[in-house]
Amino acid sequence: MKNTFGHAVAFTLFGESHGPETGIVIDGLAPGIGVDEEFIAARLALRRPAGGISTARREADEFRIVSGVYRGRTTGTPVCILIPNTQARSGDYERLSGIARPGHADYTAHCKYHGFEDPRGGGHFSGRLTAALTAGGALAILALRGKGVTLGTHISRCAGIADREFASADEDIDLLNSRQFAVLDEEAGARMQEAILAAAQAGDSVGGVLETAVCGLPAGLGEPWFDTVEGVLSHALFSIPAVKGVEFGSGFAMADMRGGESNDAFYMDDGEIRTKTNHNGGVNGGITNGMPVVFRCAVKPTPSIALNQETVDFVRGTDTELRIEGRHDPAVVHRARAVADSVTALVFCDLLAGRFGTDWLMP
Amino acid sequence: MKNTFGHAVAFTLFGESHGPETGIVIDGLAPGIGVDEEFIAARLALRRPAGGISTARREADEFRIVSGVYRGRTTGTPVCILIPNTQARSGDYERLSGIARPGHADYTAHCKYHGFEDPRGGGHFSGRLTAALTAGGALAILALRGKGVTLGTHISRCAGIADREFASADEDIDLLNSRQFAVLDEEAGARMQEAILAAAQAGDSVGGVLETAVCGLPAGLGEPWFDTVEGVLSHALFSIPAVKGVEFGSGFAMADMRGGESNDAFYMDDGEIRTKTNHNGGVNGGITNGMPVVFRCAVKPTPSIALNQETVDFVRGTDTELRIEGRHDPAVVHRARAVADSVTALVFCDLLAGRFGTDWLMP
Amino acid sequence: MKNTFGHAVAFTLFGESHGPETGIVIDGLAPGIGVDEEFIAARLALRRPAGGISTARREADEFRIVSGVYRGRTTGTPVCILIPNTQARSGDYERLSGIARPGHADYTAHCKYHGFEDPRGGGHFSGRLTAALTAGGALAILALRGKGVTLGTHISRCAGIADREFASADEDIDLLNSRQFAVLDEEAGARMQEAILAAAQAGDSVGGVLETAVCGLPAGLGEPWFDTVEGVLSHALFSIPAVKGVEFGSGFAMADMRGGESNDAFYMDDGEIRTKTNHNGGVNGGITNGMPVVFRCAVKPTPSIALNQETVDFVRGTDTELRIEGRHDPAVVHRARAVADSVTALVFCDLLAGRFGTDWLMP
Amino acid sequence: MKNTFGHAVAFTLFGESHGPETGIVIDGLAPGIGVDEEFIAARLALRRPAGGISTARREADEFRIVSGVYRGRTTGTPVCILIPNTQARSGDYERLSGIARPGHADYTAHCKYHGFEDPRGGGHFSGRLTAALTAGGALAILALRGKGVTLGTHISRCAGIADREFASADEDIDLLNSRQFAVLDEEAGARMQEAILAAAQAGDSVGGVLETAVCGLPAGLGEPWFDTVEGVLSHALFSIPAVKGVEFGSGFAMADMRGGESNDAFYMDDGEIRTKTNHNGGVNGGITNGMPVVFRCAVKPTPSIALNQETVDFVRGTDTELRIEGRHDPAVVHRARAVADSVTALVFCDLLAGRFGTDWLMP
Repeated sequence: MKNTFGHAVAFTLFGESHGPETGIVIDGLAPGIGVDEEFIAARLALRRPAGGISTARREADEFRIVSGVYRGRTTGTPVCILIPNTQARSGDYERLSGIARPGHADYTAHCKYHGFEDPRGGGHFSGRLTAALTAGGALAILALRGKGVTLGTHISRCAGIADREFASADEDIDLLNSRQFAVLDEEAGARMQEAILAAAQAGDSVGGVLETAVCGLPAGLGEPWFDTVEGVLSHALFSIPAVKGVEFGSGFAMADMRGGESNDAFYMDDGEIRTKTNHNGGVNGGITNGMPVVFRCAVKPTPSIALNQETVDFVRGTDTELRIEGRHDPAVVHRARAVADSVTALVFCDLLAGRFGTDWLMP
Repeated sequence: MKNTFGHAVAFTLFGESHGPETGIVIDGLAPGIGVDEEFIAARLALRRPAGGISTARREADEFRIVSGVYRGRTTGTPVCILIPNTQARSGDYERLSGIARPGHADYTAHCKYHGFEDPRGGGHFSGRLTAALTAGGALAILALRGKGVTLGTHISRCAGIADREFASADEDIDLLNSRQFAVLDEEAGARMQEAILAAAQAGDSVGGVLETAVCGLPAGLGEPWFDTVEGVLSHALFSIPAVKGVEFGSGFAMADMRGGESNDAFYMDDGEIRTKTNHNGGVNGGITNGMPVVFRCAVKPTPSIALNQETVDFVRGTDTELRIEGRHDPAVVHRARAVADSVTALVFCDLLAGRFGTDWLMP
Repeated sequence: MKNTFGHAVAFTLFGESHGPETGIVIDGLAPGIGVDEEFIAARLALRRPAGGISTARREADEFRIVSGVYRGRTTGTPVCILIPNTQARSGDYERLSGIARPGHADYTAHCKYHGFEDPRGGGHFSGRLTAALTAGGALAILALRGKGVTLGTHISRCAGIADREFASADEDIDLLNSRQFAVLDEEAGARMQEAILAAAQAGDSVGGVLETAVCGLPAGLGEPWFDTVEGVLSHALFSIPAVKGVEFGSGFAMADMRGGESNDAFYMDDGEIRTKTNHNGGVNGGITNGMPVVFRCAVKPTPSIALNQETVDFVRGTDTELRIEGRHDPAVVHRARAVADSVTALVFCDLLAGRFGTDWLMP
Repeated sequence: MKNTFGHAVAFTLFGESHGPETGIVIDGLAPGIGVDEEFIAARLALRRPAGGISTARREADEFRIVSGVYRGRTTGTPVCILIPNTQARSGDYERLSGIARPGHADYTAHCKYHGFEDPRGGGHFSGRLTAALTAGGALAILALRGKGVTLGTHISRCAGIADREFASADEDIDLLNSRQFAVLDEEAGARMQEAILAAAQAGDSVGGVLETAVCGLPAGLGEPWFDTVEGVLSHALFSIPAVKGVEFGSGFAMADMRGGESNDAFYMDDGEIRTKTNHNGGVNGGITNGMPVVFRCAVKPTPSIALNQETVDFVRGTDTELRIEGRHDPAVVHRARAVADSVTALVFCDLLAGRFGTDWLMP
């Protein structure tokens, strides 16, 4: 299925960094969902470069919804959102023969597309497409919100600096969604931004970890085999450029625990079944248990750096050196948080509509 | 698609811990692949309980291939492998009303299946089904081997003890596939086994990390969005019971690196394009680059422990305590390595057949 | 997806004519559906050879449900039904080198599977697999019945002889499901059986048309594009061996009508919206309108005939002649009716569960 | 998957009759295919209203390819083609409360989308979307042509008047692709056009039958169960508005044949295996046999007619009468031929890429 993901709610991504339009088609979203275009614009703004710590490419991110919405509400038929590339300056990025940028997809794209790929600015591999994904996901966030499901992502780690952990997921989500630089501890956030700037000045880049919480999900979502909540979510999350790891709950830290610690004790809380800890990230046996679904994505440092790098010319088959000119994002983790929210929201719309039917997300 | 995974090569899992048969159907595997039943049996043996460190349930793991094989070779039509449950002793595991075992799927299964689920021994959620997955994957391993693709998994960490890292992936794979307890450093392995026994004596359990390497893959496999190699693999890997995290290459450790470190420099090696490091785990932009694909799965401690645990009776809606009787696996990470190999092999058969056509895997 | 069909409810078929077991896995069926094994046996009996007009191969059609059922009800996890081939007599059908039986799949199987296909009795292409499909569909029929959806199929035409048309679909369905030779007009049925015998005596075979009606479906099932009710149903129906055409409502006859005739006038009938005619077969714009869904399948004559036939030896690449020995079905249309019911029921379970959620089919 | 069809090559349709843009995304098409925009325009022209026999809505059908094409060739990443609705005149079609046009999807859309559907001009159900399908299919036709696979469709029947049958499929295809009104016998075509005009003058409409031939396909495409060539093609073809039946080869006529007649005798023809007749339409056991794949689609009369019609107001729940004002197509069969070609080409690209790999369609 490739550039399409999902079953009951499916989304299809298209476009290239320097093509005329990028876009997303979302199919299967329930009819009647209010389409708040300001909210979509606000979500796009969260993904846009912030302050001095981001790339010089300033994208207006104007979007047009060209199908699936009538009188301000979803119709239930495919919603297509287009985002034009108004600022594409092809010259900046034109590929010099076959020089592979390390950490990028230049070489693998060539292996797959035999030289017919659009090389300008990463082509179809460009982070530019995450704008469309963010816009589409904004619609999914609206749909979920109408059913009491909320979500948010923070930069739990950047350049080796840790944000504080989630305390009350519900309240922390609200906090995060009000912040352009998504940290719970603003002092830690300030230090992260300094570290990003320091890396930029050194011609280098930094990575980080995003942590997402989803609250208000019903228990019973997901499947025992293959379409586990963890499996379906991770499948989609690895499409966020630079994500190299996904863990749920305490994730890799559970490997060093004993069962007596990692087992989350159930208890009755005012008639509701809850767990005292949430090491399992709200998922048991692949299926939601009603606790917040919590997971983390490892985001590698931006591969575009200003340092000299050894590499090859894959057309000529020779060793060479590369120094990437121009300004580039010294980090993407702070921008990727909006994308993580969007991907998560789209996936849960799919899981919910698959489990409870198409109309479940109707307001 | 739920209990079916894959497109060009798809596999479907069925059965319950205490039902008469468990099984797997593998569809789309090329015709002509030699079906070495001894090899399948040997792979099943790698998954079976070892020495004193595993559960008392001794399964013969006799399997029957009932379709898709003719005169010792695959026909190209669906292969069904059945594994009967000869040793099922229902009484041992019968559920007492609605007491949720912490860390298990009892409660979430109930939410999803409304009490109609088979509760005996975890029912369809049981690790017992990984025998069928292992057997099916053995066929996939044979198919890949015929095309020069090899793979192996080691216990890179267990109970806080680390195995040595992969040196030469090719040679280490051979080593691992010859060992029942899959470590590269046997001294570390001995300490892991001691730690497992110590946990068992304390009525507790331990977790670990599995690391898998796949060698010999062509560059150009995978898709830029959604069906990235990382996405598709992790989707399937999270079905291995107890897996709570998946990371590729240096994974979460990349979050703390700078780009100058995490970018893998390309170089020409006797006419072949290779990278000097492999922080990206053989995947750039979702697509294989010809280097070994390397990834790690976090395996949580076995949730079945002999300690007293607080929990709820979800039928009565009351708090209660639970002490799980009988002997249980104090760790599954060493058994899960065979499952990880099998899932990985099945996924790469799918990716290869999707990319190069059904016949590509023919010998 | 090949040997798997469906999304919310999916079914996977495996086995060969002379292999040890054939079977079906049904995934996604709601939990709690009562599994009436006598009903399944009765449905299999409808598919079995009748009287003097069918093949000499007498199959016991004993089936075993090996997963997904607990205490007589579906659990919600995959149901696997196995049907052993107790009477397989390989010698009768063994392929003589590469002689293609005209109208059969010998040659196309060879092109696809390169000679590794199981040639005995048609292998995986055998009508024998429709027993498993019939058994699986019986479960789907039970699920639908629990929600007031009923269906039935009659031989609307055989050897040029027409059955009467549906009068009251509801009542006619009951009538059909009580008859081994599924006609509404028993006098026409008697003449059909005579014609089948006459063809058999001439060493030849006859075809026919099956007409199915499905009552009690809610309006609003299906999709405007691609997953239209017609599209999804026909996709599955063409898997019934020998089906070469599928038409809905008045189908091909509509091509010669004018719009004033083919448009079905809506009217209010005691508060319900109905149509006065049903030329559109209960489907407008790909979506059910609440009227019975009615369609017809063209079934070609059995290709196995006792006459001399010109053909090729595709291994040697030479012209040759063929005379198929042994007794064969002079018609399959009367047996295929049970298969048509089953395929239809499985498809509607999928459409209903996809539209209204997994639990909709719960009793 | 709904508005997306296909696996190896998948296409997604979006848009509404009176929305700003309609479009198609085609994913999985091989890289390097030359994108001849004049050819796409020519294919769109074949779909456009002809002479006096079509609707007054004159659409420019200007299209924009906004992704997946670079320097005149496909890149291998998703191709999005947009077709704006420049001539949408909303007022003409605005729905009066809930009056269901007989034969249309107004009522079924309402059942599915609960009143949130876009009612203007049929919304997402509009034949207008077939322009995007035609444009996308034009690319698929180009891809196939590069591999020697050609196809064409004629109006084999319209208003009860028959065209001549295919003689040499290869040559007839060339003939058809050069004609705006796709008949093999122009005299029959003239009479068809008269009959269409006569129906128009009577305020009524007519239907017909389209017959398509595909030449140059390799043997061995398709699957024995579920993804038969017939099943996959019919699934897609039923999305062409007004199609109510699909038959392959001699189709429904085979029901009245005997096996001795309907079996196609194989013979050696200069080293190639061919059949003397083609009653099976190039498909045996669901798989292509190397003969032309031939099939027919029944197209019902246009439901929009100028006559008084009985119907209901489904919002008020009352009987009412309807007379559709304005000019409408008195037939769509002659326009649908371009759509049938396109759908067919897209489906075969999918089957070929799935069978032989993504690169098989590369030039």
